[in-house]
Amino acid sequence: MSVHTDQSAAAVTVLGLGPMGRALATAFLDAGLRTAVWNRTPGRDGDLVARGAIAAASAEEAVAAAPLTVVCVVNYDASDAVLRQDAVTAALKGRTVVNLSADTPARARDTAGWAERHGVRYLDGAIMTPTPTIGTDDAVFLYSGPGGLYREHQGVLAALGGSHTHLGEDAGRAAAYDIALLDIFWTSMAGYAHALAVARAEGVTGAELAPFAQGIAAILPPLFTEFAADTDAGTYSGELNPITSAASTMAHVVHASEAHGIDASVMRVIEGQARRVIARGHGTDGFTRVAEVITVR
Amino acid sequence: MSVHTDQSAAAVTVLGLGPMGRALATAFLDAGLRTAVWNRTPGRDGDLVARGAIAAASAEEAVAAAPLTVVCVVNYDASDAVLRQDAVTAALKGRTVVNLSADTPARARDTAGWAERHGVRYLDGAIMTPTPTIGTDDAVFLYSGPGGLYREHQGVLAALGGSHTHLGEDAGRAAAYDIALLDIFWTSMAGYAHALAVARAEGVTGAELAPFAQGIAAILPPLFTEFAADTDAGTYSGELNPITSAASTMAHVVHASEAHGIDASVMRVIEGQARRVIARGHGTDGFTRVAEVITVR
Repeated sequence: MSVHTDQSAAAVTVLGLGPMGRALATAFLDAGLRTAVWNRTPGRDGDLVARGAIAAASAEEAVAAAPLTVVCVVNYDASDAVLRQDAVTAALKGRTVVNLSADTPARARDTAGWAERHGVRYLDGAIMTPTPTIGTDDAVFLYSGPGGLYREHQGVLAALGGSHTHLGEDAGRAAAYDIALLDIFWTSMAGYAHALAVARAEGVTGAELAPFAQGIAAILPPLFTEFAADTDAGTYSGELNPITSAASTMAHVVHASEAHGIDASVMRVIEGQARRVIARGHGTDGFTRVAEVITVR
Repeated sequence: MSVHTDQSAAAVTVLGLGPMGRALATAFLDAGLRTAVWNRTPGRDGDLVARGAIAAASAEEAVAAAPLTVVCVVNYDASDAVLRQDAVTAALKGRTVVNLSADTPARARDTAGWAERHGVRYLDGAIMTPTPTIGTDDAVFLYSGPGGLYREHQGVLAALGGSHTHLGEDAGRAAAYDIALLDIFWTSMAGYAHALAVARAEGVTGAELAPFAQGIAAILPPLFTEFAADTDAGTYSGELNPITSAASTMAHVVHASEAHGIDASVMRVIEGQARRVIARGHGTDGFTRVAEVITVR
C-alpha cells in the first residue's frame, strides 16, 4: 500500500530489511508501533506487512511516513546511496534519522555534517549485539549526537529492547565504541579459531576445549577493568604478569602452531609488539603497554 | 636446614620459587603439608621457611626429601637444567615429578620420555589461572600422563585449591590445552590493548570503554561452545553472521585505526584470513572456517 497521502501514517520507519533491519522492524511492530518499511531490493517485506507493517513504494515515501527513520544497511556507502538522493533528502527535512548501520567514526561524522547542511535531524548509533537479541533484554544500543534529540526519540527506540546509552554529542562517538568493541570481539574470535586449529592438530576436539575456553572468557572482565585503569594512568603494572613472561608464552604458541604447519601470523605480530615493548626497556611492565608502541605520536 | 639425613622429611617438594612457585609452596604449607623448597637463585625461601618450609641446600636434597616433587620454573629449558643433572635424576628414581612449568606439547612429551628412561614417575601439568588464585576455589590445574599416578597424588595436589582435571595418558595433552587456551587469552588481550589505543585516539578513555568491553567478554562463552561444535562438525554455519559481514567489519577496524596512525597489523592479518575463506567460495560460512585455511593439510 502507498503511504503517499498520509505523512504521519507511522510512528517509525525502518530502511533496510536485511536480517538486522527485519529484527528492528519486528521489535517495533511487537511493541505496537505503526511501522513503515522499505528495502532497496523489493520482496523482503511480505511477512512484515502480514504483521501490520506499512510497505512503502519508495525510500522517499518511507521516510515521509514517520517523524523518525531508523536506517540499518551494510555500511555508510549503502546508507549514503539511499539518504543522499534528492527526493529522500527533501522528504527528510525536519525529520529525524537514526543511522544504526556500521562504519567508521569518520563516516558517522561526515553523515552528521550532511544532515546538518540539509536540515535533517541526525543521531548516529551502533548495535552491539546479534540479531536474536533485538527486542530482548540482551540487546545493546549505543547512540551519539544531540542529547536533546536522543531524549526526544528515546521512548520509541526503547521498543527495540535491551539497554540504550547516549555517549555524547560528537556523532562519531557511537562508531568509535563500536569499532573498539568489534576490534576486541573479532580479535578474540580469531584467537579462538586459531586455538581450535592447534587443539585439533594435537588431537583435542572443540568440544573438549570449549569448557576451558569458557574459563578463559570468564577471567577477562576483571582484567579489562584493571588494564583500562593501567592504560588511562599510563602505569602498566606488570607485577603479577610481566610482558617478558607473556612474550615467552607467545613464543610457545608460535612454535607449537608452526610445528603442525599452522599459520601463526597473528601471534607472531602480537609477540613482535611485546618484544618491542621489552626492547624499549619496559620488560617488567604489563602487556597493555603495547597500546603505546602501536600508536604513532 | 639440611634434609640430607631424612629422606621422607616432607610430603611434597617445590622446585622453583618465582611468584607461582612461591604461591604453590604457600598453598601446600597452608594445607598443613610438610613442604621442602629449593630455588636455583638462593635467598627466595626466607619467609617460606619462617612459615615452616624445609629449606633444601641443593636440588638433589630437595627432591630426595619427598615422594612428590612439583616443578614450576620459567620453561622446559629451565626444568631440564635442574632435573637432568645426574645427581638430581638419581635422587628422583622411583619418585614422582609433576612439572607445572609452561612450554610446548613436544617439550612435555620429550620430558616424559626422559623420565621413563630414568625410572622417574612423571606427570605433566599446566596452571591456567594467575598466582592469586592458587589455594582458592578459582585455581585451575590440568594434568596429563599415567592416570594411576595422577590418582595416587591427587590428594596432595588438591591442597593447591580449585579444580584439577586429568586430560589423558599422553603427556603432551596438558600443554596442548595450555597452548590453545593461552592462544585465546593473549590474542584477546592484544585485541583489547589495540581497542584501548583506538578508543583513546577517538577521545574515549579506558574507563569509559571497559564496561562495554565486559559486555563483549560476556557474549563469548556461548559462542565458544557453538563454534567448537561447528568446527568439530565442519559445518561453519554463517546464517546469522556470514564471514563476508565479519570481513567488512574488520576493514572498518583497520581503516579507523590507520586513520589515527595506529598499527593495525593484527586485524590486517585476521581480515586477510577471512578474505581467503571468501575467495575459496565460503563467503556465507561463519568466521571459524578460518581454522581450516590457516591449517596446512
